Amino acid sequence: MWDKIYINAVLATMDGNAPYGLIERGALAIEQGKISFIGTMDSLTGAADSLAHEVIDLSGRLITPGLIDCHTHLIFGGDRSGEFEARLLGKSYEEIAKAGGGIISTVRATREASEAELVALALPRLDAFIAEGVTTIEIKSGYGLTVKDEIKMLRAARQLEHERPIRVRKTLLAAHAVPPEFKGNADGYIDLVCNEIMPAAHAEGLVDAVDGFCEGIGFSTQQIERVFETAKTLGLPIKLHAEQLSDLGGARLAAKYGGLSADHLEYLSPQDTQILANAGTVAVLLPGAFYYLRETKLPPIKALRDAGAHMAIATDCNPGTSPMTSVLLAMNMCCTLFQLTPEEALAGTTCHAARALGLDDCGMLKSGFRADLAIWDIHHPASLAYTIGHNSLKVRAFSGSD
Amino acid sequence: MWDKIYINAVLATMDGNAPYGLIERGALAIEQGKISFIGTMDSLTGAADSLAHEVIDLSGRLITPGLIDCHTHLIFGGDRSGEFEARLLGKSYEEIAKAGGGIISTVRATREASEAELVALALPRLDAFIAEGVTTIEIKSGYGLTVKDEIKMLRAARQLEHERPIRVRKTLLAAHAVPPEFKGNADGYIDLVCNEIMPAAHAEGLVDAVDGFCEGIGFSTQQIERVFETAKTLGLPIKLHAEQLSDLGGARLAAKYGGLSADHLEYLSPQDTQILANAGTVAVLLPGAFYYLRETKLPPIKALRDAGAHMAIATDCNPGTSPMTSVLLAMNMCCTLFQLTPEEALAGTTCHAARALGLDDCGMLKSGFRADLAIWDIHHPASLAYTIGHNSLKVRAFSGSD
Ligand SMILES: [Zn+2]
Ligand SMILES: [Zn+2]
Repeated sequence: MWDKIYINAVLATMDGNAPYGLIERGALAIEQGKISFIGTMDSLTGAADSLAHEVIDLSGRLITPGLIDCHTHLIFGGDRSGEFEARLLGKSYEEIAKAGGGIISTVRATREASEAELVALALPRLDAFIAEGVTTIEIKSGYGLTVKDEIKMLRAARQLEHERPIRVRKTLLAAHAVPPEFKGNADGYIDLVCNEIMPAAHAEGLVDAVDGFCEGIGFSTQQIERVFETAKTLGLPIKLHAEQLSDLGGARLAAKYGGLSADHLEYLSPQDTQILANAGTVAVLLPGAFYYLRETKLPPIKALRDAGAHMAIATDCNPGTSPMTSVLLAMNMCCTLFQLTPEEALAGTTCHAARALGLDDCGMLKSGFRADLAIWDIHHPASLAYTIGHNSLKVRAFSGSD
Repeated sequence: MWDKIYINAVLATMDGNAPYGLIERGALAIEQGKISFIGTMDSLTGAADSLAHEVIDLSGRLITPGLIDCHTHLIFGGDRSGEFEARLLGKSYEEIAKAGGGIISTVRATREASEAELVALALPRLDAFIAEGVTTIEIKSGYGLTVKDEIKMLRAARQLEHERPIRVRKTLLAAHAVPPEFKGNADGYIDLVCNEIMPAAHAEGLVDAVDGFCEGIGFSTQQIERVFETAKTLGLPIKLHAEQLSDLGGARLAAKYGGLSADHLEYLSPQDTQILANAGTVAVLLPGAFYYLRETKLPPIKALRDAGAHMAIATDCNPGTSPMTSVLLAMNMCCTLFQLTPEEALAGTTCHAARALGLDDCGMLKSGFRADLAIWDIHHPASLAYTIGHNSLKVRAFSGSD
């Protein structure tokens, strides 16, 4: 006997060739936190209540894989709403930076906060993701920028997994910004990242992947390559913030190192899309930052699609350029602003997001996969990306932490 | 003794000259559904528990007026997510129209639905507004386009007020589109609107205001003027969808008739902003439609501001051009896309939204006003517009229906 079976469900399996891998009149059973059966109602080999201890009739409601946000900076100290207001009141970026604003203000507040305080600040944001059916979330460090403070951020991320029923993937983003004490000495800071921060965080088992910010205002490809070499030595997978504001060739670099993903990509050249596709490096679209910064350069969606690159979608939740906690809204933004199809949008927060995190046991409704599910009060998956700022989640099922 | 007092609250009163009418360390008391006291903690004339039956310490949390959405098409039949998907799969507007899509598909589905069905379909949307602290919502007809069906929509709007703790303002928008049976005879349909629909709906007490869609694809200023003349005869206030896609002079026409509001306004000429300001006609910004249609022409915000026009903000919640149910997101969009300040954004969904509905007893925290409140888990009102797709509502207080 299975533990539970959902019957009369519309299943967006995201598996197989049909759009959404859709099963119109389907059943899905769970046993011990895994999907034990998935198929049409007709393929059930007996009455539902003879097959499972608990039978739930969904009356045509939609089940999707639990949503996955594969790129967030969920943990940070401080509050930058005042900076947002100052800018709209006409203050320049220089004035705001002089008044202590910008990313360095988040670094300062994050350093000052304890691990417990970081957890408490992140929980309301995390709860917003959970309320939308998110069952796996990636969280990056990158506002500590010292051994102690990067580790503190990653411990806080790990603690969130104990506080709430959600799977957290932890990414070390020590190469996020040059900290004030290394001003003018980015190479010296990369020494610290490679020689101290990365080995220490890895030794504590806190690193699922290593990330960097490759940009004129971040780090050069040469500096990022040093980070990737160290990650390789430690056996850690890599990903990269690439081509957000200019084309430095970061995506090519990520692909060269077999990266899980290259993220942002507004300035990715169409020729480089094939390199991502060939490497299996997922193109992660972050429409929140595009929207918030009023960017007009669109990522090369058609070229990515034509090249057969996998496209994921994430919120980039962060206090400076995307204070967004809604994966559903990110999906709508990708359709509205980038002209993705609703099916691509759902793949972007399920199967392709799993791939961007190196996970092969979630993101699809598939026998043997984790029973991380979102059940929606709608009947067709296109509705998820169609609405703006609306959440039709009915039930969220989470199969347990690793 | 007052019924209840909130102490140690940050109060965004939206009243007075300070930004947000802010009281940093404030108290607010309620008696019989009205605000009976508002002021600083220091101005309380005794211990809180000697002044009110119930004392609630908010520990620095923010109280704002309950939010007001002054422009929605919340009630409609059918589902246009399939049309959204078809368009992103490359179908042209013509193909979609031929396949039965577009506004006429909503008209057909709305005509087919019963009043009870329309209520049931609208409730999940209404609940999303309530979850964000909305205490007053405007709902338009406009998908019935017959005497019977326009009245059915307005009755459904009235019924929503009985189903949930929220105040509903009902707007007759019979002049929304030319129905199929009047194709090529818009003037004939305006006859029906003026001679039958408007008087019948008004006779049933279902009309708080009369609206129209003044646009090349809607009705001409001459046709709208006939609607306004009839409204005037019946003693009903008017508002208008104006200058969304082109400049036909609709805002001037609304101002001429002392209109409550002119809505959309992307193509409003800067010179006409002073006419709105002088007439006291509120400029209602609808960023959801701007975003969804990927419009690039910005409403003349600076001219509106300089002219001293009141700016309100609404979702325009509708199935075709703004399937949005989040007032908070509309506020963020106005800041991000239109460069409003966070204070203007909050005024746009409180005091100025009240004005756009002709209401003078809500939208501010003020002695004698309705005790419609939103209490937030934040400490400064700028945070409301700063976040994208986040809801920090803690408690919503509603003072009761009229
Ligand atoms: Zn990022
Ligand atoms: Zn409208």
